[in-house]
Amino acid sequence: MWRDLRPIGRHPDSGGYRRYAWTAADADCRAWFQEQAESRALTYEVDRNGNQWAWLGDPAAGNAVVTGSHLDSVPDGGAFDGPLGVVSSFAALDELRRRGARFTRPLALVNFGDEEGARFGLACVGSRLTAGHLTVEQAHRLTDGDGITLPRAMEAAGYDPDAIGPDPERLGRIGAFVELHVEQGRALDLSGDRVGIASAIWPHGRWRFDFRGEANHAGTTRLVDRRDPMLPYAETVLAARREARLAGAVATFGKISVEPNGVNAIPSLVRGWLDSRAADQRSLDQVVGGVESAAREYATAHGVDLDVVRESFTPVVEFDHALRDELARLLGLESGRENGRDTGLKVPVLGTGAGHDAGILSGSIPTAMLFVRNPTGVSHSPAEYAAEDDCVAGVLALADVLEGLACT
Amino acid sequence: MWRDLRPIGRHPDSGGYRRYAWTAADADCRAWFQEQAESRALTYEVDRNGNQWAWLGDPAAGNAVVTGSHLDSVPDGGAFDGPLGVVSSFAALDELRRRGARFTRPLALVNFGDEEGARFGLACVGSRLTAGHLTVEQAHRLTDGDGITLPRAMEAAGYDPDAIGPDPERLGRIGAFVELHVEQGRALDLSGDRVGIASAIWPHGRWRFDFRGEANHAGTTRLVDRRDPMLPYAETVLAARREARLAGAVATFGKISVEPNGVNAIPSLVRGWLDSRAADQRSLDQVVGGVESAAREYATAHGVDLDVVRESFTPVVEFDHALRDELARLLGLESGRENGRDTGLKVPVLGTGAGHDAGILSGSIPTAMLFVRNPTGVSHSPAEYAAEDDCVAGVLALADVLEGLACT
Repeated sequence: MWRDLRPIGRHPDSGGYRRYAWTAADADCRAWFQEQAESRALTYEVDRNGNQWAWLGDPAAGNAVVTGSHLDSVPDGGAFDGPLGVVSSFAALDELRRRGARFTRPLALVNFGDEEGARFGLACVGSRLTAGHLTVEQAHRLTDGDGITLPRAMEAAGYDPDAIGPDPERLGRIGAFVELHVEQGRALDLSGDRVGIASAIWPHGRWRFDFRGEANHAGTTRLVDRRDPMLPYAETVLAARREARLAGAVATFGKISVEPNGVNAIPSLVRGWLDSRAADQRSLDQVVGGVESAAREYATAHGVDLDVVRESFTPVVEFDHALRDELARLLGLESGRENGRDTGLKVPVLGTGAGHDAGILSGSIPTAMLFVRNPTGVSHSPAEYAAEDDCVAGVLALADVLEGLACT
Repeated sequence: MWRDLRPIGRHPDSGGYRRYAWTAADADCRAWFQEQAESRALTYEVDRNGNQWAWLGDPAAGNAVVTGSHLDSVPDGGAFDGPLGVVSSFAALDELRRRGARFTRPLALVNFGDEEGARFGLACVGSRLTAGHLTVEQAHRLTDGDGITLPRAMEAAGYDPDAIGPDPERLGRIGAFVELHVEQGRALDLSGDRVGIASAIWPHGRWRFDFRGEANHAGTTRLVDRRDPMLPYAETVLAARREARLAGAVATFGKISVEPNGVNAIPSLVRGWLDSRAADQRSLDQVVGGVESAAREYATAHGVDLDVVRESFTPVVEFDHALRDELARLLGLESGRENGRDTGLKVPVLGTGAGHDAGILSGSIPTAMLFVRNPTGVSHSPAEYAAEDDCVAGVLALADVLEGLACT
C-alpha cells in the first residue's frame, strides 16, 4: 500500500510532499484511495463535500464505526501526517479479516478533503463543511494564491461545487469516529510508549501583527530619523518566546511579509503572524496578551503604528470521555493478544497542540484519536518519521479498537 | 517638462514609481528624454550600453562637460531620485541659453540606464558597463525575478545586447561629469542650506545572513526541542541597530526571505540581508564584524547554523578634489548673480551613504555631485520631496557650474 502512495506529490528537490487540495497530486491520492477500497470489495462513495468513504456493511443501517484521516499535505510536508491514519485504517481492516472478526456495526474508512488548508488557507475544509462549521458562502469565497476560488478548483477536478454544504444525514449514521495520527510532538518518545490516546486539542489561534513605519533609503537616513518597523517586529518575536516559556505554552512567528522588501530600503510594513497554543484558555490569553502589550510598547518607542488582528481561533476541544475510556479499556486489556508481539501499549493519554478533522467532528459525534510515536517529534517537514514497529503497533491498536467497538 | 514625466510608471495604489530597466515605463521615460533633446536641437544618441546622450557641440571635440542622472526607480520610489538631475540638466541648459552663454567646450546631458538595479539586483549597470566595472559575461548572467536575463530584456526593448561592453573612447571625450541629485538625508535641512556639494560616497556593502534551523509544527513542538532560526534573526536585527549606533554608522535589515513561511510552521530557513554604510572603512568593519559575531553567538544558542556571505561591497569614493573646489568657488562667488534671487547658497560639503553613477565614473573621469535639500530626508519612497524653490536653486547652481566650466 505505502509503495504506491509514497511517490505521489513528492517534490524531487526537498523530498517533501506537496499534496494540495484539488490538484493533480490530490487526484492521484484519491485514485489510490478508491483502488484500495475497491480491491477490498468495500462500497466506495464520495460525499457532497468531496470526502471519500469506503463502507463495509450497510451505510444506512446507522451507528457506524468510522476511522480514517486525510491524504493532503502542508508545503513540503512529511509522509505520515494524514496518510498514516488512512493506510492504518485499511491495514487494520485487513488485520480484522485475518482474525476472522464478525462485524455487528457498519464500518467506514474515510479520507477527509483539504485537512491542511495549504491551498486555500483554511484547515479541515472537508470536515468543516460536513459538520456545518463552514457555510457554503464562506467556502465559495476561499481563494488560493493564484486567485482560483475553491468552487473553480473543485470544478476543474471534476467535482460539483454547487453540491457542497452541511451533511447532518451522513453524520447521523455515525456512532463513533476514531482517527489515528502520527504524534506531532515527543510526549510518547519521552514516556517510552508506542501508541497513545488523545485527551484534548489545545485552544489555539493565529494573530496578524502589522507594524507600519516609513519606507526610506537604508544608506542615507540617520538612525534617529527612522521609523523602521523591522525593529519592533524583532523585539516582538523575542517577547513571544519569553511569554510562551513563562506560560508553558508555545508561540511562533513562522510567516512574515515585508514591503517593499528591498536590501537598501527601510521597510514601510512588516507583517508577522503569531501562532500560539496552550493547554487552557487562561494560559493562551496570558501569552497573547503579553506579546501584544510588549509589541505596542516597542512600536511606540520606534514611532511605528501597530494593528493586531485575530485571524482565527479554535477553543479547547475535549474528546468524548466515554469513547476515550472505552479505547483505554480495549487497549489496556487486549493489545497484542492476537499476534503474541509486544506492542508496548500502556496507552498514555495526552493533549495536542494540532488541529484535526476529529476535533471538528467532535462537536457532532463521539470522536477519539490514537497517536503513534514520532521519535524526533518533527512534523510538517520531510524529516517527519515513525518507526515501522511503531506503525505496526498503531495498526494493531486500531484493529483492537475497531474490533472492540464494531465486532462481536 | 515635469508634467509629461510625472505620470510615467506611477502605481495607482501606492503613488510610488515603478520604472524598472527595459520595461514599458522605462521606454516611456526614454522617449521623454529623446523628445526633450530633439526639441532643443541637441544631437541625440544612445550608447552601446543603452545610456542616452544629448549633445550641444561636437562630441568628438573632447574635454566635454557632462551632466545628468537617471530616470529609473526603486520599487515604489519617489519622483525626485534620478529625474531631478535629468530635468535640472535640461532646465540649466535653458537657463544658460536665456543668459546668452557662449560655450567653449562641448556639453552633454545624459540619462544612465538601470541605476537603481531594481530589476536585475545590481545598481548602476549602465555606468558600470561603460566604465568597465562590470564585464559583459557578468552582465549577460544578470536575471530578473521572472527569470528573464538582461540580454533578453534589452532585446525585447529593441536594443542590441551583443553591443554592450566598456566604452573608453566615450569616456575619453569627457573632461568633467557633474551629477545633481536630491539629497537622501537631512544634512542640508539641518544646516539650513538649499544646495550642497558631495565630498565622498561612504563605503558600503550588502551581507546575506542565512540562518538554517529545522522546520517543524508550530503547535506541537516543545520550545526546548526547537531550532527556530527566526529567534537568532530577530536578535541580530537588534544587534545591527546597536552596532550602527555605537559606530555612528547605519545598518539595516530591510529584506527577508523565510522558508516555508507558513503560519503554523517553525521556519527551516530565515535569510536576512544587512545593508551597512559608514563614513570610513574602519567604522564599517566594526559594525559588520560586531553584527556577525553577535549573530554567530545567537545562532549557536538556538542550535541554528549560520552562513554569512558578502554579496557586494564598494569602497569609499572620494570625488575629484580639484573639480569639487572649482564647484565651491563657482557657487560661493557667483550664485544668484544673474537673476537677483537669493538662492541661499553657502555650498556645504557633505558625504553620502548612497551609491550613484557619479561614484562609478569617478574612477575614470573627474566627477562631482550637487545635492538639493530634502526637508524630510525621505528617499526611495513616494514621500520623497524637494520644495520648488529648492529645485530652482538647484537648477541655478547647476547652470552656474556649467557656465563656469564650459562657457567663456
